[in-house]
Amino acid sequence: MVPQLRYGNKNLYVVALAGGVGGAKMAHGFAKALERSQIPAENLTVTVNIGDDFEHLGLTICPDLDTVCYTLAGIENPKTGWGRANESWKAMEAVERLGGPTWFRLGDRDVGLHLERTHRLRLGESLSQVTRDFCHLLGISSQVLPVSDDRVPTRVYTSLGELSFQEYFVYYHCAPKVTGFSFEGVENAMPAPGVIEALDTADLVVICPSNPWVSIDPILAVPGILQAVKQKRVVAVSPIIGGQTVKGPAAKMFTELGIQPSPLAVTRHYAGLLQGFILDQADHLLSSQIKELGMDTLVTNTLMNSPEDRVQLAMQVLDFAANLQNH
Amino acid sequence: MVPQLRYGNKNLYVVALAGGVGGAKMAHGFAKALERSQIPAENLTVTVNIGDDFEHLGLTICPDLDTVCYTLAGIENPKTGWGRANESWKAMEAVERLGGPTWFRLGDRDVGLHLERTHRLRLGESLSQVTRDFCHLLGISSQVLPVSDDRVPTRVYTSLGELSFQEYFVYYHCAPKVTGFSFEGVENAMPAPGVIEALDTADLVVICPSNPWVSIDPILAVPGILQAVKQKRVVAVSPIIGGQTVKGPAAKMFTELGIQPSPLAVTRHYAGLLQGFILDQADHLLSSQIKELGMDTLVTNTLMNSPEDRVQLAMQVLDFAANLQNH
Repeated sequence: MVPQLRYGNKNLYVVALAGGVGGAKMAHGFAKALERSQIPAENLTVTVNIGDDFEHLGLTICPDLDTVCYTLAGIENPKTGWGRANESWKAMEAVERLGGPTWFRLGDRDVGLHLERTHRLRLGESLSQVTRDFCHLLGISSQVLPVSDDRVPTRVYTSLGELSFQEYFVYYHCAPKVTGFSFEGVENAMPAPGVIEALDTADLVVICPSNPWVSIDPILAVPGILQAVKQKRVVAVSPIIGGQTVKGPAAKMFTELGIQPSPLAVTRHYAGLLQGFILDQADHLLSSQIKELGMDTLVTNTLMNSPEDRVQLAMQVLDFAANLQNH
Repeated sequence: MVPQLRYGNKNLYVVALAGGVGGAKMAHGFAKALERSQIPAENLTVTVNIGDDFEHLGLTICPDLDTVCYTLAGIENPKTGWGRANESWKAMEAVERLGGPTWFRLGDRDVGLHLERTHRLRLGESLSQVTRDFCHLLGISSQVLPVSDDRVPTRVYTSLGELSFQEYFVYYHCAPKVTGFSFEGVENAMPAPGVIEALDTADLVVICPSNPWVSIDPILAVPGILQAVKQKRVVAVSPIIGGQTVKGPAAKMFTELGIQPSPLAVTRHYAGLLQGFILDQADHLLSSQIKELGMDTLVTNTLMNSPEDRVQLAMQVLDFAANLQNH
C-alpha cells in the first residue's frame, strides 16, 4: 500500500531523482512549487546522479550535482546547461596557453567550487557532507544528495570501444554509437547518508526528465535504492518529446540500442516502477498505449523554457501524483 | 683561479640565484642586458628558490618560480610583486563564498598555471621539466631552473613556534619574531638537472637582491650548490638599502636575529663567497668597510623602479664583475 498524498499537505515529502539540466530545472520547479504552497523547503530531497563525476586537472568534478546546485541557487548558466552564469574563463585561458587540456571547459567561478570541494574531499570529508555545506552557503534550503559518497563512474561501451562518460559526452560530443553502459563499482557502493531515509520518508518519488540510461539508471543501480523507490508512489516525467530530447543524447541512445525513442520507450525502460507518467502534449497520441501498461498519464506542456514553466510543470506533477487513479 | 670574464663576450654565461620580486627584476635586467649585447638568451640561467613552495587548495604553488617566470615573460603584476597583471579573482570569490581559505590570494590566470602544473607533477613530471615547458610556451628564452626537483620547504622558527614559510609570510604577515630557519629535507635534496651544469659553465654567479635568509640560503643549502658556486666569480647585489628592504622581511629578520641590517651584514652573511658586492648609493659610506672584507664594491642606484632601471643595474653589475680588481 503506497502512502496517501495530498498536494498542499504541509507534510508532503518529495524525492526527485535527477541528472543534469532537465533534472535541475524540474527540481527547481519542485522547490518553487513547495514554496508557493508553504510546504517547508526541506520536504524536497533531490537525489543526484554521480555517474558523470570525474577527475580533471586534479579537480573532482560533479557535473550533475553542480548543475542541480547552481540551478537551485539561481546562479546557473541558462544557455549552456552547465556551469555558472556570468562566468569568466581566465584560468582556462592560462591552462590553454600552457599546453593543458581544454576539451572540458571550466569557468573561473566553477573552478573555485571544484578547488574547494576537491580540497575537502582530500581532507577526508564525504561528497554528501561537502554538498550539504555548499548548499547551505549557496542559500539552498532543499536537501541535495549525491546518490552515493562512493565513486560509481559510468562506462560507455561504444563503436570506439569503452569510454569514460566525459570522454563520450564532452570529448567525443556523443558521436560514437553506444552499445551499452556499466556503472563501475556500483555493486559495492553505498547510498549516501540520508538517501534511503529520504526515500523512506517520501510520499512521492519523481523521476525527473533526465536521461534514463546515464542519469537515472546509475541512481537506481546503487544497492538499496531501487528497493526503497519501489515502496513508494513513483511518477516520471518524459525526457523524450516528439521522439527527441530537449538536451543530451537520450533519444540517440535509445535509437542506437535498437529502441524507437518515445515516451512509451521511457515507460518500458522504467517497467514495474511507475504509477504515473507525464508526457508532452506533442506525444498525446501515445497516452492510451501508456495507460495500457498500467499507469495513469498526464499530458501537458513539459518543456521548461522559463522558470515559471518549471513551477507550473512541478505543480501539475504534484497535483497529478496526488490524484492517481491506479491506487 | 676564476675564469676570465669580459662583458660583451658572446660566450659570457651568467647564473643568477634568485628569490621572488627582487630576484625576478634583477633576472629580467640580465636577460635584457644580454639581449642588448647580442649575447644569446640561453647564456642566462636563473636558479630559483623553492623553499616557499607549498600545497594550497590541492595546488602546488611555487611563488618565486612563478614571479621569476611571470616577470621574464613580461606578464607580472608590477604592483603586488606576485601574481599576474590584469588578474581577475572569480575563482577566489567562489572559494570564499563556499567557506574555503582565502588568506593566500590566487588570481584566475594564476590558478590556471597552478592547475596545469599540479596536474603534470601528479602525472610524474619533474618541476624543472614542467618549468622548462612553461617557459617555452611563455616565450622565455633564458633558462629558469628550480634549484631542486625535490621538496625543500622552509620552516620558520618564531615567537609563535615553528611555522611553514607561507604561514609566516602570508598568513601572519611576517609579524612573529624569527629565531631561525631550516630547510626540511635539504640534506637529501638533489640539484635539479641543469643546475650544476649551468654553474660549471658560468663565468659569473650573481646573487640577486633577494632575502639572504629565506631566498638565497635555501638555494645554497642544496648539496653540491655551494661547492659549485665557490668555484666561480661571485658577486651579490645588496637587498638592503639604508637599513631597509625594498620588499619583504629581510631587514626585519636581520634585526630579530640580533644583526643590524645593512649591506655590511649581507656581505658577512655571504662570508667567503663574494669577490664583488653592489650596494646602493644610500649606503656609500659602508663601501670602504666592505672592501676591507676582501672584495670590490660598486656603489650605484640599486633601486629597480622601472624596467629600464633593471637593465641599467644589470649592465653595471656585468661590467663591474668583468673588471673586479681583487682577482
